[in-house]
Amino acid sequence: MNYRLIIRSIGNVLRIEAIFMLFPLVVALINSDNSHWAFLWSILITFGAGTLLAFIKPKDKNFRTRDAFVVAGLSWILLSIFGALPFYFSGYFSSFIDCVFETASGFTTTGSTILTNIEVLPKGILFWRNFTHWIGGMGILMFFMAVAPTNASLVNLLRAESTGPSPDKVVPKIRETARIMYMIYLAMTVLLIILLLIAGQPLFDAFINAFATAGTGGFSSMNASIGAYNNIAVEIIITVFMFLFGINFSLYFVLLDKKFIKFFKDTELKVYLGVVIAAILIITFNISGIYGGIDKALRYSSFQVSSIISSTGFATADFNLWPTLSKTILVLLMFSGCCAGSTGGGIKIVRFIILFKAAKIEVGKIFHPGRVKSVTISGKKVNDETVSKTALFFFIYLMFLFVSVVLISIDGKDIVSSTTAVISSLSNIGPGLGDVGPAGNFSSFSPFSKIVLSFCMIAGRLEFYPILVLFAPSVWKKSLIK
Amino acid sequence: MNYRLIIRSIGNVLRIEAIFMLFPLVVALINSDNSHWAFLWSILITFGAGTLLAFIKPKDKNFRTRDAFVVAGLSWILLSIFGALPFYFSGYFSSFIDCVFETASGFTTTGSTILTNIEVLPKGILFWRNFTHWIGGMGILMFFMAVAPTNASLVNLLRAESTGPSPDKVVPKIRETARIMYMIYLAMTVLLIILLLIAGQPLFDAFINAFATAGTGGFSSMNASIGAYNNIAVEIIITVFMFLFGINFSLYFVLLDKKFIKFFKDTELKVYLGVVIAAILIITFNISGIYGGIDKALRYSSFQVSSIISSTGFATADFNLWPTLSKTILVLLMFSGCCAGSTGGGIKIVRFIILFKAAKIEVGKIFHPGRVKSVTISGKKVNDETVSKTALFFFIYLMFLFVSVVLISIDGKDIVSSTTAVISSLSNIGPGLGDVGPAGNFSSFSPFSKIVLSFCMIAGRLEFYPILVLFAPSVWKKSLIK
Repeated sequence: MNYRLIIRSIGNVLRIEAIFMLFPLVVALINSDNSHWAFLWSILITFGAGTLLAFIKPKDKNFRTRDAFVVAGLSWILLSIFGALPFYFSGYFSSFIDCVFETASGFTTTGSTILTNIEVLPKGILFWRNFTHWIGGMGILMFFMAVAPTNASLVNLLRAESTGPSPDKVVPKIRETARIMYMIYLAMTVLLIILLLIAGQPLFDAFINAFATAGTGGFSSMNASIGAYNNIAVEIIITVFMFLFGINFSLYFVLLDKKFIKFFKDTELKVYLGVVIAAILIITFNISGIYGGIDKALRYSSFQVSSIISSTGFATADFNLWPTLSKTILVLLMFSGCCAGSTGGGIKIVRFIILFKAAKIEVGKIFHPGRVKSVTISGKKVNDETVSKTALFFFIYLMFLFVSVVLISIDGKDIVSSTTAVISSLSNIGPGLGDVGPAGNFSSFSPFSKIVLSFCMIAGRLEFYPILVLFAPSVWKKSLIK
Repeated sequence: MNYRLIIRSIGNVLRIEAIFMLFPLVVALINSDNSHWAFLWSILITFGAGTLLAFIKPKDKNFRTRDAFVVAGLSWILLSIFGALPFYFSGYFSSFIDCVFETASGFTTTGSTILTNIEVLPKGILFWRNFTHWIGGMGILMFFMAVAPTNASLVNLLRAESTGPSPDKVVPKIRETARIMYMIYLAMTVLLIILLLIAGQPLFDAFINAFATAGTGGFSSMNASIGAYNNIAVEIIITVFMFLFGINFSLYFVLLDKKFIKFFKDTELKVYLGVVIAAILIITFNISGIYGGIDKALRYSSFQVSSIISSTGFATADFNLWPTLSKTILVLLMFSGCCAGSTGGGIKIVRFIILFKAAKIEVGKIFHPGRVKSVTISGKKVNDETVSKTALFFFIYLMFLFVSVVLISIDGKDIVSSTTAVISSLSNIGPGLGDVGPAGNFSSFSPFSKIVLSFCMIAGRLEFYPILVLFAPSVWKKSLIK
């Protein structure tokens, strides 16, 4: 292991985090809400710690795969711990574990909260809470790559942090890729803020909600989430943008490149759209009785489907009270998530497509034992290694789910609450069902369960491997130091 | 497709089923319980239909893989339909769908019932109900192989019906393998009957319970399952035998061959034993408060763990009332099931071991990208194709689970009841939680849901592929007829 490089990189990531904290500091000062001290202290500590670590000079500046995965795993854990400082210093949280949970939930764009009353928080704190969504959505290592000096080995960092079975570089240079992605992300966020302002949102709320939508996070500054505004224009805008941020960002690059046919021929996009439409129709029909008509049912169901499949987790209705069929579909959407390479979470639709096709080929082999056939996605061949890695991904997801549910169930909550709390954390959704439904929160879990769930959120966001490597004994063996 | 061979084989399977029906007929006559007419008619129809089909002479007697899978899929569906006739003629069931559900549940050794009062049934019917467990446990095609004329291609039938990632032939000849397996199965069943008689069970109950234990089925002639006897000796015997029938039968052959070291070095057996002990300890500790002490808690937990992991589904306590931790562990055991090549269901422990090792190797690749390493089980190398097929198996299991839960949830039962009903059916357990807990039954599901669940039971028992091939258009295409 190149420990020097790992430590220095983590130091730089912490310094970037400290710089990001300047934004909520400004918000705190403008609103003179007394939370600025929390930020000043946090910036000092985070920047100080980062600078101390960044003092270490590596002899070799190349990221091997293993170094990149360890950097990703440790960075995200440390980001959540240092990012929790403003919450802790603000005095509005009852324990440091609660603060870490809230920050992990923020950076991983989960959006689960341990707060029972959000509306009493100072604006600076609310801003930081949702700004973590925006930072985490595209990935902080991605940002690091965008600002780091050119280095071909950074592609390993991209692999470690990005989502989906095979991350694309849209342009040959990795730094350029990172910059283009961030520009698209920024432009879409700005557009969303403008639209929310036009729809009548106050400036602060427009920012907060745009951050949560862009990162597919789901934190809200209102206790009743987006439902609190009761503004149909806002709901429609957010419904559409949650869906858009669930699309693979490299497809937006394809669009900018005016390759419209390639865009519309993307298999994952077509399935994503199909699933969304089917889910909206079934749920609308299923809940129309509750809301006394199709129009209201369509409004709530389309918002909720877009919110859950994109892994945002906003709510305009308490879907915990919906019939079993609707709840079941929402839980399945929590598993699936949206597209690879988006800011959203979950297993990702492309993985389902790959395995569905692989299963079909496997059945075909019973008929034609000799025939060799490969999985293709959008006309491109998927190699066998990717297929078996994808299948293994399901297994790893399930193992994390099984072990975590057992650990959480020690708290004695009902099965639906414990299970959906874990699914929601692994897939970075936010709400689940039962106690953790849209009207509930995560405050009643034990500190141990909160640590387990925070861990699930980070493991799910990084798609497990950067967390699994931290358990490999080789990481901690001296023999590998160079 | 070799349609002639397929049709003839199915005909023979039906004739074997008709012959098996002679046993409950004798029981009905001895007890003069008036159910003999139901059996006479059923035998006539089943044997007649079988003979009609068996008239067709195939030109080619070789089972290709595809023919074997189609035979397995169709046989099990038809067995469930024809096997339902005695129930239907008896007049104790409210619809033919209920009868098919009960029969599918019997043959697949699930043990879920739609009956609300079992104890009113005539003895002949009760005997047939549990005899289906015994027949289905080892597999009816296995029996067919044991009696069929020597034919090397029968190995494809074995592959289609047996469970686990790579079925073993214990001896080179397939017919010999089938005979040895049936002899071991019969000997263990007889031993169990004798022990139950010694423990004080009436002859009829000893037979009934031995069939259900040997097949890891779980039907009981008592409404309160094994709990009704309140006989601790019976409970201990059944606890031990449920565990034993969950072991790979080829290991018993290893034992008979006096290869004790090989027996005790089997990875799957060691993990199976470890999981059982761990689950018993955790649950005992967790429920000791309810039963006012460790001794009663240990009694109930060891019975229930053995019952669920072996996929039998007997109950001595209403575990639906246990704390969440215990219920969660039981649900996870429903997924895992026991060992491949046993009479039990579920995903099978060896599949978890293979994928766990594969995941470890995948993490290792991050450290040593060039290194090639293979999964080994009990010292034997598992080839890459088996690993990726195993991973795909999880995906297929999940897809069946997801789709079926959506279909079942149309009934509007709560999520826990619908989900565990499907898991229980796919893994051939019997009870689930909620409405389908040990104190409940499946009678309140809609006819549509009962069909879906029957289908899940058969698909799970055959480990999906023999059912998936039936959906392949090639099966129904004329071009493949020869």
